[in-house]
Amino acid sequence: MNKPNIDVVLSPIMLPIFDIEDHIVVVIDILRATSTICTALHYGAKGVIPVATIPACLEHKGEGYILAAERKGSVVDGFEFGNSPFEYMDGVIKDKTLVLTTTNGTRAIQESMAATHVVVGAFLNLDILCDWLIEQKKKVLLLCAGWKDNINMEDTLFAGAVLNKLKDGFTMESDGALFTEHYYSSNQHDLLNTMKKASHSLRLNKLGVSRDIQYCFQHNQAPVVPILEDGVLVNVL
Amino acid sequence: MNKPNIDVVLSPIMLPIFDIEDHIVVVIDILRATSTICTALHYGAKGVIPVATIPACLEHKGEGYILAAERKGSVVDGFEFGNSPFEYMDGVIKDKTLVLTTTNGTRAIQESMAATHVVVGAFLNLDILCDWLIEQKKKVLLLCAGWKDNINMEDTLFAGAVLNKLKDGFTMESDGALFTEHYYSSNQHDLLNTMKKASHSLRLNKLGVSRDIQYCFQHNQAPVVPILEDGVLVNVL
Repeated sequence: MNKPNIDVVLSPIMLPIFDIEDHIVVVIDILRATSTICTALHYGAKGVIPVATIPACLEHKGEGYILAAERKGSVVDGFEFGNSPFEYMDGVIKDKTLVLTTTNGTRAIQESMAATHVVVGAFLNLDILCDWLIEQKKKVLLLCAGWKDNINMEDTLFAGAVLNKLKDGFTMESDGALFTEHYYSSNQHDLLNTMKKASHSLRLNKLGVSRDIQYCFQHNQAPVVPILEDGVLVNVL
Repeated sequence: MNKPNIDVVLSPIMLPIFDIEDHIVVVIDILRATSTICTALHYGAKGVIPVATIPACLEHKGEGYILAAERKGSVVDGFEFGNSPFEYMDGVIKDKTLVLTTTNGTRAIQESMAATHVVVGAFLNLDILCDWLIEQKKKVLLLCAGWKDNINMEDTLFAGAVLNKLKDGFTMESDGALFTEHYYSSNQHDLLNTMKKASHSLRLNKLGVSRDIQYCFQHNQAPVVPILEDGVLVNVL
């Protein structure tokens, strides 16, 4: 049997050059949207509704949902919840639906709607996500949300981790995939130190969320596979 | 004195997110436009006029120029010259002006017009280009021409080589720059072997131009600094 292809998009601005129609798109925004989504579902959220804008988030007011909005790393004025995974661990999210808008990650989800499936990846669900992707036997595109359309280190490292795990079961031929995998494999034993140089670490450290970074690089702490169904991310497992 | 910044654009599709107005843009298309441009100037060309389209190239017919056009790696039908550096080594180019259009490289030059200076980089002029960039004391943006708006290995490796040489004299902070430099520095002693896996190598090998690839990875064989002046690339040295 022919192996399906796997490739990577290092920034959403490059997405238009890829054909996503018959692909599973894995949206990646390690710091912190996709880590937070995995955490919320792992801690019992019924679903997460990703929305691109703050007005789209506010439209859900009064529907019994938890509304959360983050811009530039901070909770948006007027919202109680933001984009830190630690906000969703104490039972607050159990059996609730979260409506979430973030700087980069939720927009990347919106832009992937043409794909066969849209799922969410983070170090927190790395192994179980890879197992699920292998089972699907479909072409995979790893979409890094990046930072304001530029490449970022944490999403690239995670995409490299998935490529590293899947390279035997998939064909991996593009130059972008080859060097993303190389970047992960040559840094995999020291991810947090590698991240210390990253622009977004510096940005988040200024906001006092270094604890979030530590958590978001832990592997398999939230073993869920969030998949988009009718506009809501639910755990497919 | 503050160090100027250096950054990298891994695909022209990402160029709009960068401010290039007060930068020197280094256009990179290792296989083969910028290698060919350096070669032509080194072998005595008066100048190279980069044009984006085949009609724009044909407009210069009858003006005493050498017209060259490449698409998808081959000489375009009706043209005598293409995009192989070996076409410009035997004296044919001496004191002549070359009008060149290629799949990716010449378009990237056109898209950089808003920069303070547009120069051309290749392994063939690596050291002398870096020396010149250091002397200018200006912000530098390395623009990889890529392949049809996607990232490619050879341009990324060269951008990494420049970052590696300039990182002490410049600030280099973006995540893209950090991992581009890492990719070069961890492969620098085996560039041609690394390239064997690259998509464009496979493409060019099918066209029988593996000799071009070997040549384009030689360092400092064409020590010129092509700079765009009134639409013509001339050697600034």
